[in-house]
Amino acid sequence: MRDQISDLLEDIARHSAPGAGVTRLPFTAEHQAALVTIRHWMETAGLEVRLDAAGTLIGRREGPPGAPVLLFGSHQDSVRNGGRFDGIMGVLLPILALQDLQHEELPFAVEVLAFADEEGVRFPTALVGPRALAGRLDPDCLDLQDRDGVTIREAMTGFGLKPQDISGLDRRNSAIIGYVETHIEQGPVLQDRGHPIGLVTSIAGIERHQVTLQGQSGHAGTVPMHLRRDALAGAAEMIVAVEGFAASAGDVIATTGRISVTPNMVNVIPGDISMSLEIRSADDDARRQAATTIMTTFKAIAAKRDLSLSAERTYAQPAQPCDVTLKERLASAAEVISGDVPMLPSGATHDASAMAELCPMAMLFVRCRDGVSHQPDEFAAEADMQVARRTLSRLIRDLAADHHRH
Amino acid sequence: MRDQISDLLEDIARHSAPGAGVTRLPFTAEHQAALVTIRHWMETAGLEVRLDAAGTLIGRREGPPGAPVLLFGSHQDSVRNGGRFDGIMGVLLPILALQDLQHEELPFAVEVLAFADEEGVRFPTALVGPRALAGRLDPDCLDLQDRDGVTIREAMTGFGLKPQDISGLDRRNSAIIGYVETHIEQGPVLQDRGHPIGLVTSIAGIERHQVTLQGQSGHAGTVPMHLRRDALAGAAEMIVAVEGFAASAGDVIATTGRISVTPNMVNVIPGDISMSLEIRSADDDARRQAATTIMTTFKAIAAKRDLSLSAERTYAQPAQPCDVTLKERLASAAEVISGDVPMLPSGATHDASAMAELCPMAMLFVRCRDGVSHQPDEFAAEADMQVARRTLSRLIRDLAADHHRH
Repeated sequence: MRDQISDLLEDIARHSAPGAGVTRLPFTAEHQAALVTIRHWMETAGLEVRLDAAGTLIGRREGPPGAPVLLFGSHQDSVRNGGRFDGIMGVLLPILALQDLQHEELPFAVEVLAFADEEGVRFPTALVGPRALAGRLDPDCLDLQDRDGVTIREAMTGFGLKPQDISGLDRRNSAIIGYVETHIEQGPVLQDRGHPIGLVTSIAGIERHQVTLQGQSGHAGTVPMHLRRDALAGAAEMIVAVEGFAASAGDVIATTGRISVTPNMVNVIPGDISMSLEIRSADDDARRQAATTIMTTFKAIAAKRDLSLSAERTYAQPAQPCDVTLKERLASAAEVISGDVPMLPSGATHDASAMAELCPMAMLFVRCRDGVSHQPDEFAAEADMQVARRTLSRLIRDLAADHHRH
Repeated sequence: MRDQISDLLEDIARHSAPGAGVTRLPFTAEHQAALVTIRHWMETAGLEVRLDAAGTLIGRREGPPGAPVLLFGSHQDSVRNGGRFDGIMGVLLPILALQDLQHEELPFAVEVLAFADEEGVRFPTALVGPRALAGRLDPDCLDLQDRDGVTIREAMTGFGLKPQDISGLDRRNSAIIGYVETHIEQGPVLQDRGHPIGLVTSIAGIERHQVTLQGQSGHAGTVPMHLRRDALAGAAEMIVAVEGFAASAGDVIATTGRISVTPNMVNVIPGDISMSLEIRSADDDARRQAATTIMTTFKAIAAKRDLSLSAERTYAQPAQPCDVTLKERLASAAEVISGDVPMLPSGATHDASAMAELCPMAMLFVRCRDGVSHQPDEFAAEADMQVARRTLSRLIRDLAADHHRH
């Protein structure tokens, strides 16, 4: 296998639907082609490869009889017109780390997991693979459909899988050392601090609200300013308030990413607004408190402007802290390779979010150019990825040494 | 003819394309049907009716030989899913006023003009009828197309008109007393002040800007608040600033009616914004000064947030003051009928904007429920419209008396 990580990632990026960047949705021909490449990587590293009933490709290095297993992994899929690093880099790096250790003995088994669907782009759910391993999958979710009306179950069957066997994937009664995921940061913190890698403290909790404002549409030439009930102006005041609150709070981030205006014409005062509000925090209490504060502010702004406000919490997911012990082992491995390593929360959800329900979980972030991800120009430098690869090798060695000591 | 204005307006509202409210675009079957009704109204009031080459239906009461003409009018067309009053009420009321005076002698001719296209919904231009009368029509504009690729010229020809004769409509060398337009206010000022009618001081000038902001799109979970370049948050700060500036300025109004956000997803920081800015004022200097002030504010906000700003003025139209003498005659007629009458600028453009290039122009506004127009529930009360009708009759009588005195 060539030594350049970038070349390998460029190679597998070819398995994409047409268009800019990488578009590799689960249970498609692109997914099938990517699995051939990943299988080849795994076999080259001496791993034994199988595809489980949920479509997770598993490369296993066997350990001594009865030994526990150390898990690594991430996802093979991308968003539409996404980048070459998100997900797949976290599949490749532990394979390379294991290749580096091919001639060393280990007192445990190691597996690298390439999950089918983390992004949730094709179906209105995600993380089927890790949830199946954690025994947390409601089989009804397999009836969810993509936009062509194909259910997950049908897509899996068409992919050669046996979704009826998914319940057998539950690993809760097996000995697992932990799950370590490597992922591009998808944010600018490591670049800002000048470090190639970082340690995740916790995967942030998320809540989303759908906010609507109803004012009074009217002719933009004929309604004086003091008689207006402009829903967009009200929304603008709210967006500025949310930004200011989150910037000063420190432990939450909040975003209005989507807004729609009715009637949205140059010469008509906006009468109706619908907008999203997303709040994330590694601290669930801080997140809930932020939501309460923001909603109080929204109510005051709406009342002052005589706008009807409705807000509904449409989604909530608690924070998932990384395992303290496993994180410390990963941190000390990282420090050996790259010195003092920043600790930061993960604002994004990962396969690790679901794996944390099964076993100790830790995450390693790789610096991301300009914080850009989910776009064709997503980029991680070769040197940074090599640091991550060596960190993973080191972690495996350190855990092996721990095992021998005990 | 029945006496209830509301009934007559309800009657003609039936000439509409399907859907809620009134949709009557120029040179359509609905327009043709409406002209039959308007012709009937005009003939009932004793007017002689003809259709000019631009599609303006003209009902004329002849005066003594060589006498000047007093013009009234408004437009027959509506926006899509518009109301029953905008435009057409200003055609009907002077017809009824002339009907009331049918047995009185007048020392001048009077015409009521039903213009074809004021709203500019079908074609990317408007006011062809009044611009033709004012000798201000560039014939090239007849090549502009509707969304089906039909030019104005073709639409006119299909309607039985002879667009090649439009240049002959120029009335600049004829004796015209003035043009008086009656229109629903389309704003809440008269309702707010508790008056059935109001006098227009000036038709506001308008300028429009297309504003774009480019920041940096990014994952809403992974980019900390202090490293964001959120284009929507920047736009929100600008919208709040524009609103505050216009509210305190007093002599301008400013509106952001349209905004589009890219990528507009719940979990992505908005990277790009495009939005409209419209500024109106009866005072052109105040409007231009407001634009300068607002752009300075926009630049400061963009600079502070590291957003790329571009702003282009896409449209400008100067204010059109009403004729002082004609406005005073209309005001004194209005006072006789309804006491002290509010004076207010028209924020909207009207046929009167183009007619002001031809002759003295004045406008009478009728109270509009809740300021709502361009919508199916646009509403003017019967009693208010009767006040306007009597004001127009009184104006004609007063002008006749003036004429006899001189």
